[in-house]
Amino acid sequence: MTGPDPGDRKASASDPAVLKLGGSVVTEKDAPETVAEGHLARAARALGAAGTGGDRGLVVVHGGGSFGHHHASAHGVSRTSGTRDPAAVREVHAAMRRLNGAVVDALAAEGVPAVPVAPLSVAARADDGALALPLESTRTALGEGFVPVLHGDVVAHEGRGATIISGDELVVALARGLAADRVGLCSAVPGVLDEDGEGVETIREFEAVADAVGASDATDVTGGMAAKVEELLALDVPASIFDLDSLPAFLAGERAGTRIE
Amino acid sequence: MTGPDPGDRKASASDPAVLKLGGSVVTEKDAPETVAEGHLARAARALGAAGTGGDRGLVVVHGGGSFGHHHASAHGVSRTSGTRDPAAVREVHAAMRRLNGAVVDALAAEGVPAVPVAPLSVAARADDGALALPLESTRTALGEGFVPVLHGDVVAHEGRGATIISGDELVVALARGLAADRVGLCSAVPGVLDEDGEGVETIREFEAVADAVGASDATDVTGGMAAKVEELLALDVPASIFDLDSLPAFLAGERAGTRIE
Repeated sequence: MTGPDPGDRKASASDPAVLKLGGSVVTEKDAPETVAEGHLARAARALGAAGTGGDRGLVVVHGGGSFGHHHASAHGVSRTSGTRDPAAVREVHAAMRRLNGAVVDALAAEGVPAVPVAPLSVAARADDGALALPLESTRTALGEGFVPVLHGDVVAHEGRGATIISGDELVVALARGLAADRVGLCSAVPGVLDEDGEGVETIREFEAVADAVGASDATDVTGGMAAKVEELLALDVPASIFDLDSLPAFLAGERAGTRIE
Repeated sequence: MTGPDPGDRKASASDPAVLKLGGSVVTEKDAPETVAEGHLARAARALGAAGTGGDRGLVVVHGGGSFGHHHASAHGVSRTSGTRDPAAVREVHAAMRRLNGAVVDALAAEGVPAVPVAPLSVAARADDGALALPLESTRTALGEGFVPVLHGDVVAHEGRGATIISGDELVVALARGLAADRVGLCSAVPGVLDEDGEGVETIREFEAVADAVGASDATDVTGGMAAKVEELLALDVPASIFDLDSLPAFLAGERAGTRIE
């Protein structure tokens, strides 16, 4: 058998990278349930070329884009507003599973050892909204050389039926729980832009960019750029926001887009 | 909104029933990837009529039958023999997801508030084969009135890539972890049969039936009747093995088939 020995794999799996492929990257946001085939294939090629998996531990998360948000909105479900309708839960989840299947297939086609992980099956929210995301499955899969691929989803929420969990929220929970060494958000924009539309190189506090990122310009039940920046600032590890052009650089451990420390 | 109030639901969710629908019940075991539509519909009608979910907490597990075993055998994967081939993991898992989709849809059509739970996403095995099955998602879904539907699957296994988790193994882990008040295995036979082919009413120790259940007559990577009986005897709660004729009785809390104490 070729490949790293189990000892190497375990050592590296303790500090993987967490990469989010934004819903605006992998789907056509304005067309219901439409995969952005070209963008997705480009992202998959970058991951395949970087040799992710094995001793280069990576967890991928993708957003819902035109798969999840459409159904979530139709049923009035958000991160805080729940549903007790099992058909609504199944519908939102099934749409996200279809997108996840497309992402996993695209990654597999480029040799990435991708395996699907469905948040509905593993995560839950307590009464106060606090997320429980047990990581036995993801951590073990990583340790065995696989690349777990999670997605925005609907999860059971104590007292509210089921609510939405966003890809961004998963990224933060995974980065903390897996002690990731870096986090990347591959989005439709090359980074955080200031009020003049120029890319910001580094963000160390929210106030510095609050005016520029104060509102998201797309309907998104899971929050826009402001929420992303605030959540990433709260992490102990560096995070980067970049677009597809800079994905190879991020995977190579180089500077990409806006760095949030 | 009709239905029990949240207080009732929470109280009952702490002692749900765990029901396994055997692979030999929900699939045509001899035909690859073929759902036993008639049997599945009959089981779903029984669950729908019993008013499961809500204050009558129920977790459903189904076996792999002709969906899982076929692919697992083709890739040489069992409970102890693993695979490091991500395509094998995806293939076994996808087959089981297709069966799970059919089961969830059939239950939903009869008004059962079924939601899917995929073991690959939540479970893992340690080096020594010990199963970790965190129950936050299943317990919260139960508490909110849903009926989680799990299935035999492939899971990451420390040091071996990925191995099979059987429906029977899930039943035992769920019964323990959720403090279930009773366990039912709905199989193709009306109960455990003695050496004369007569149904055994009650089993309290393995030796009493060892000769009769010593071997399973079907190829099954996850163990036959002997393994089932041994695992159920180790539980603190009563378990029953019965066929579709007795499913309504089990759901009503009555005696069904062979009782294992």
